[in-house]
Amino acid sequence: MNMSAGGGKRERLVVIGGDAAGMSAASQARRLKGPDELEIVAFERGHFSSFSACGIPYWVGGDVAERDALIARTPEEHRARDIDLRMRTEVTEIDVAGGRVRARDVDSGAESWTSYDKLVIGTGARPVRPELPGVDAPGVHGVQTLDDGQALLDTLARTRGRRAVVVGAGYIGVEMAEALINRGYEVTVVNRGREPMATLDPDMGRMVRTAMEGLGITMVNGAEVTEVLTGDDGRVRAVATRDAEYPADVVVLGIGVRPETGLAAAAGLPLGAHGGLLTDLAMRVRGHENIWAGGDCVEVLDLVSGQERHIPLGTHANKHGQVIGTNAGGGYATFPGVVGTAVSKVCDLEIARTGLREKDALRAGLRFVTATIESTSRAGYYPNASPMTVKMLAERRTGRLLGVQIVGREGAGKRVDIAAVALTAGMTVEQMTALDLGYAPPFSPVWDPVLVAARKTVRAVEQQG
Amino acid sequence: MNMSAGGGKRERLVVIGGDAAGMSAASQARRLKGPDELEIVAFERGHFSSFSACGIPYWVGGDVAERDALIARTPEEHRARDIDLRMRTEVTEIDVAGGRVRARDVDSGAESWTSYDKLVIGTGARPVRPELPGVDAPGVHGVQTLDDGQALLDTLARTRGRRAVVVGAGYIGVEMAEALINRGYEVTVVNRGREPMATLDPDMGRMVRTAMEGLGITMVNGAEVTEVLTGDDGRVRAVATRDAEYPADVVVLGIGVRPETGLAAAAGLPLGAHGGLLTDLAMRVRGHENIWAGGDCVEVLDLVSGQERHIPLGTHANKHGQVIGTNAGGGYATFPGVVGTAVSKVCDLEIARTGLREKDALRAGLRFVTATIESTSRAGYYPNASPMTVKMLAERRTGRLLGVQIVGREGAGKRVDIAAVALTAGMTVEQMTALDLGYAPPFSPVWDPVLVAARKTVRAVEQQG
Repeated sequence: MNMSAGGGKRERLVVIGGDAAGMSAASQARRLKGPDELEIVAFERGHFSSFSACGIPYWVGGDVAERDALIARTPEEHRARDIDLRMRTEVTEIDVAGGRVRARDVDSGAESWTSYDKLVIGTGARPVRPELPGVDAPGVHGVQTLDDGQALLDTLARTRGRRAVVVGAGYIGVEMAEALINRGYEVTVVNRGREPMATLDPDMGRMVRTAMEGLGITMVNGAEVTEVLTGDDGRVRAVATRDAEYPADVVVLGIGVRPETGLAAAAGLPLGAHGGLLTDLAMRVRGHENIWAGGDCVEVLDLVSGQERHIPLGTHANKHGQVIGTNAGGGYATFPGVVGTAVSKVCDLEIARTGLREKDALRAGLRFVTATIESTSRAGYYPNASPMTVKMLAERRTGRLLGVQIVGREGAGKRVDIAAVALTAGMTVEQMTALDLGYAPPFSPVWDPVLVAARKTVRAVEQQG
Repeated sequence: MNMSAGGGKRERLVVIGGDAAGMSAASQARRLKGPDELEIVAFERGHFSSFSACGIPYWVGGDVAERDALIARTPEEHRARDIDLRMRTEVTEIDVAGGRVRARDVDSGAESWTSYDKLVIGTGARPVRPELPGVDAPGVHGVQTLDDGQALLDTLARTRGRRAVVVGAGYIGVEMAEALINRGYEVTVVNRGREPMATLDPDMGRMVRTAMEGLGITMVNGAEVTEVLTGDDGRVRAVATRDAEYPADVVVLGIGVRPETGLAAAAGLPLGAHGGLLTDLAMRVRGHENIWAGGDCVEVLDLVSGQERHIPLGTHANKHGQVIGTNAGGGYATFPGVVGTAVSKVCDLEIARTGLREKDALRAGLRFVTATIESTSRAGYYPNASPMTVKMLAERRTGRLLGVQIVGREGAGKRVDIAAVALTAGMTVEQMTALDLGYAPPFSPVWDPVLVAARKTVRAVEQQG
């Protein structure tokens, strides 16, 4: 503890990681406690603070013109609010027993220790980069940071050829496929799974595949990349699988991310099965009174399955930061968990999910029924009513909602929120059939597609008991 | 009871009213019981069955080209499913003690009695038609039935002048204003209330007014129509209020509707304070084992205030019909009530509400706080992120959500469903701040506007206790 100007105890809050979770926590703590009471020091190893990684595909694709539009708050803005944010400074060790962290100036290499009363870990995630021959060749890009995005845009500007290969067909993969289509590239997506969007059941993933193929994207499913092939200039020229080669002037890796928890592991902090930090409901690292963690480096409780999951999403990171900052600032807040909601799009195809897929339900020990329905985004007679497929899972016997997946056009994606709230509330599909949802012909058929799905799922529960 | 061909008891279900509630009930009962077990006779006094009254403004406005697009199921289609639907046949009396109804052929005037074992009342609502001098003049139109819509379209086709006055600024009024704007009319809306959309609080209604004025609609608020003035040809020429005259080549009445329950009242069936039939949770008319009622002629339980309301909406009528048909067909279903969700639009302005307004909350004896926030439909940096205002009401002390109102552009209206489900589940605004809603930059800011509103409302609850 330090002594403040006023002579009271002045605590120091140290934040590791200058992005969504860490800086939301810092900002919220600052709202609750002024600089006389709480000193806040934050370390960020990169060039940017508080940026929207989720926005990178839209910047690359040209929907967002300026990199800086993705920066929610600059280092200067944080400092103006009395947060001592030290950029290009990497924390290299957490000394839990000593209550201090060691940080290194990335440019000079100089190291020093900083003590803390309270610590927030927001180290984020790192992209999975497969150990493949050629994966580090020029022209192969990840899209995790703004620097990554800029490097990819530089490559696109320099490259004459128009053939792009995207490795991976999850959220990042399909969003990058859209971005490259928008940039005028011939896009091939190489995907290990049977269908794209493994966050959906394969029957719903198949619809995404069909729609992506309809956009002119070449989908190679059930294929593992074995090598990145380079030309005489050392640059990427193709991506090889066991069976084929796909010529590529640029390659984007969208294979997913893992929690960045090396530092935490070295400090002996508890990690879960997915490699993320384990916290309590107040986002405190388990067993540690004065250390919090949030964002892409933690595991979250899935309220439907009761199991921990790793879900790297900016919206969770912001909520974590809010909760951590409230608690570290002397207030009280909790993060009860997630239901696994996610939404994305490829051009005008909207893809959404919440809750459990079939395999998640099986893994959680749940028996379930499913129902899939076709409906439309608006009354069928209203202009631009577009088709929508809704799949619903409910527990056998109880009829409790377990999950919903939606694939459709405009108006499809955010309908998943209805199910997200119903899951949070533990509703049965029978209860859902009575939900009083907004209806008018420009907004919905008289039975909203989610209600139609709930009705069919009720019948499935009745039939299969 | 009749004897069926197979010798068993064959019951007769009589349905009064061939629209959403009645025919949904008939169809669902038919699904559960074949014609050998259950005879179904339905009476409809008009020319059409199962049509979407909610679609009429869009047909008048030209978004829907064909009247028949609004007909969900024709009389022939119903008959093909063994429902004896008798069109142009008006039920003139219900003899509850005798278990029979008297019906009159509208064209021939012939009357006859039909006995029932089970009765469904789906008589709908009738438009409020003010007792004003001139209100029956040619050129003055209601928009409740397809015949009304056709008559209005005929007038529009015949009329040279382009000045339209809409009386009333509720859902029908604003939708008809949009329709007439789309038809190229100069539109004046004369509205008794201080602001349009009295289903919103006035502060939110003011935004609707501003937006409507921005569309070139002349808004006359706080004004009561005293007379419809006619010209030498007997046709409407202007609408008069106490203070002014508004020239009109066509007048549309959009003042609202009342339950059509004269028949039920004459039969001694129980009516509520709003003139609608009172039912139990299975949609049985209270105190009557074998009579059900649903749709615009009943009152519904408001789950938030615990009071009965009259909410004429096709989506409720369909749910009622489904519940009634299930019960009348020997199954079991209930309609637990509503939370008062409604959504509408005027051109690209979306208007939505659910739960209680301030005055509803006061009337229900609730003390509350409110919070209003501005946000956007998508991430701020994403193209076409449009502004959105969300107002939220929560109970003092408990923080229980009481209501939400939203005014905005594309993507605003259906967000109200999040609040509708949360209301149904009895969530607090604090619980809402943790909702796992779909996030990606094309769909939402990282904090969905509903979450932003919930956070601000939490602070209001804390401050005002």
